[in-house]
Amino acid sequence: MKKATRKHTKNHNRQLVLRTIYREGEISRAELARATRLTKTTVSTIVSDFMADNLVVETGRGPSEGGKPPVLLGVLDDSRHLIGLDLANSEFRGCVTNIRGKVLHRVNKPLSNKNGRLALDLVFKLADELLTRVQSPLLGIGIGSPGLMDARNGIVRQAVNLDWENLPLRDLLQSRFQVPVYLANDSHAAALGEYTLGPERGSDNLIVLKVGRGISAGIVLNGRLHYGDCSGAGEIGHVRVVPNGDFCTCGNTGCLETVASSRAVIKRAKEIFINYPNSDLHSFAASIDEINTDMIINAFLNGDESIEEIVSEIGYYLGVAVANLIGALNVRNIILAGSLARFGQPLIETIQKQMRLSTMSTLADYTEVSPSEIGQDLVMLGAASLVLSNELGVV
Amino acid sequence: MKKATRKHTKNHNRQLVLRTIYREGEISRAELARATRLTKTTVSTIVSDFMADNLVVETGRGPSEGGKPPVLLGVLDDSRHLIGLDLANSEFRGCVTNIRGKVLHRVNKPLSNKNGRLALDLVFKLADELLTRVQSPLLGIGIGSPGLMDARNGIVRQAVNLDWENLPLRDLLQSRFQVPVYLANDSHAAALGEYTLGPERGSDNLIVLKVGRGISAGIVLNGRLHYGDCSGAGEIGHVRVVPNGDFCTCGNTGCLETVASSRAVIKRAKEIFINYPNSDLHSFAASIDEINTDMIINAFLNGDESIEEIVSEIGYYLGVAVANLIGALNVRNIILAGSLARFGQPLIETIQKQMRLSTMSTLADYTEVSPSEIGQDLVMLGAASLVLSNELGVV
Repeated sequence: MKKATRKHTKNHNRQLVLRTIYREGEISRAELARATRLTKTTVSTIVSDFMADNLVVETGRGPSEGGKPPVLLGVLDDSRHLIGLDLANSEFRGCVTNIRGKVLHRVNKPLSNKNGRLALDLVFKLADELLTRVQSPLLGIGIGSPGLMDARNGIVRQAVNLDWENLPLRDLLQSRFQVPVYLANDSHAAALGEYTLGPERGSDNLIVLKVGRGISAGIVLNGRLHYGDCSGAGEIGHVRVVPNGDFCTCGNTGCLETVASSRAVIKRAKEIFINYPNSDLHSFAASIDEINTDMIINAFLNGDESIEEIVSEIGYYLGVAVANLIGALNVRNIILAGSLARFGQPLIETIQKQMRLSTMSTLADYTEVSPSEIGQDLVMLGAASLVLSNELGVV
Repeated sequence: MKKATRKHTKNHNRQLVLRTIYREGEISRAELARATRLTKTTVSTIVSDFMADNLVVETGRGPSEGGKPPVLLGVLDDSRHLIGLDLANSEFRGCVTNIRGKVLHRVNKPLSNKNGRLALDLVFKLADELLTRVQSPLLGIGIGSPGLMDARNGIVRQAVNLDWENLPLRDLLQSRFQVPVYLANDSHAAALGEYTLGPERGSDNLIVLKVGRGISAGIVLNGRLHYGDCSGAGEIGHVRVVPNGDFCTCGNTGCLETVASSRAVIKRAKEIFINYPNSDLHSFAASIDEINTDMIINAFLNGDESIEEIVSEIGYYLGVAVANLIGALNVRNIILAGSLARFGQPLIETIQKQMRLSTMSTLADYTEVSPSEIGQDLVMLGAASLVLSNELGVV
């Protein structure tokens, strides 16, 4: 049986007070006591501690409730800094944020080749450089990494694109930088970022479908990130969608990633490059080997009709994937993120069309598929949210 | 902002105390205070209330912790009765249980034809009959119904097989019987039943895949039933699995239910009945119109090889469905329930085989597909658990 200690209770009460101030923006001590069900004395003691720590300040006076206008309290947004890293692209991205998730500084570092040692060195360099821009006490470092994680132990179990296997990334960074480090799969980080820093959507449930080199989902249910029993929730990129389909990097065949990831898109674009001499692709890429996702999307946004069939095809498979997700979870808000999300509304419409054909109309009609409003900073900010959530308990 | 009232706190503390006694089996007042972090005075007051209500009793004395051996407290299992109803089969099932979910009395009532009015009357008759066998104060009635529910408002939004649409079933029963009534989809009830009354499986996550006339899943995550944003979680029976497949009752084509439900099994068995004069089916059914699921399963269990291809086929599609579920949720324990679960280990093996081909091996290897140990009482007991959970807060 777990024993309650005074420290536990104190931490619980401290988090409750801080979270309430953070969420309310401005609040008086009396309102805080009512909202947290703590006594005024407890609230005052905790608030004094936070003020001594420079985390909470008095911001002014609120409207009178009869007597003297009450002093309002607020969180000092820049009193702590955080570092968020996104390792899911061909260039690593990192940023320094304040405790509202406002990006204060950013650094990108291209990953030259697939070598686990070099990839790890690049993480160190990225963090080193960001650390020089941190101007308040650092709360910690959050990391969104591609691949399968052991989130509890901070280990990257497998990240094929980074040539990492059973890499204790959290401990490596923690011992180098001497600050708390949190690790999550990139889609999990994205979902947390969208939930905590994205627009209010009126539900405690949300799914981020991240489509780029890999395809995976981050799932927030009841306001909490769902990791799964071995941190593998959302690994839908390797669910088979084509019987007798192409071989996948995972060893199976016909996985969603073989037909709807950026790899699949580039493969199809190369066929178009060869077969359609009039395709706009020729004005973006001089040779077939140069073709990358950005060029293909730019050609499409430029009105290149030959790319439309690629968008239809990936939209079809992603629509089936969304149908499976909402059939299982009935989550209203599905947010599209990742590099292929730049195909924009035409891709979303194809996904919605196939989703309607592939699941109950009652569920499909109720579902909204929309792009992330945070965009390409999503994983980086989600990684920072991991620190906010674990260190301050405010999100 | 939600205001805390003394009543809230009192209820919270009361539930905490009762839940702790319920789970521990036997516990002293001093241990209760430590486990709940409440003061000894608060614990004693609450316990006295429960003893006056005859819900908690003193069961004896525990081992001495130095001084006088402490008095142990326990929940009086038969101090309250509950009614659980399962409306998901061609005969309605109901039972009276005690607060440990022990079945004290059961009643089955066959549903003769598909008529919403008659189906509702049958629910009333079933409950009337069960009520005569209730011998302790009745905590409430729990119902597991097929179809789409509005669980919060106790409304059956649509149950095609029962000819119900927007039926306020909870309120109808509540005003007739004057006790609390709780309603959930049958798979949701099954998942809650398996989680609260099934064997301990070492995880707070669990999925019950219920395969019978319909196919749906009940999902428990972090120890809580996941209803979804409009109570439609787990409606995987209408996710498309066959492109250009057969029409389904839902209006779409190629749904999982068109190829893996008991309807699909009966359709395939009828083909076998015609094409294989040596099939054991002929010794179970005199004519093709008589064939039902039980006969098919009995012929299979009797060693009829002609039925094997049916088991392979539904196992294939259910394996794909499980792959989608674990890809999304990474839940270790998948429990097979519903009438087709009687196909037993051969069906489970086919499901597992296809699951491994259809999702990442890391996830598939980690997953256990197993039959429900509670068996056909699962929905009924899950429905009773709804009452236990909502009225006593003990599960």
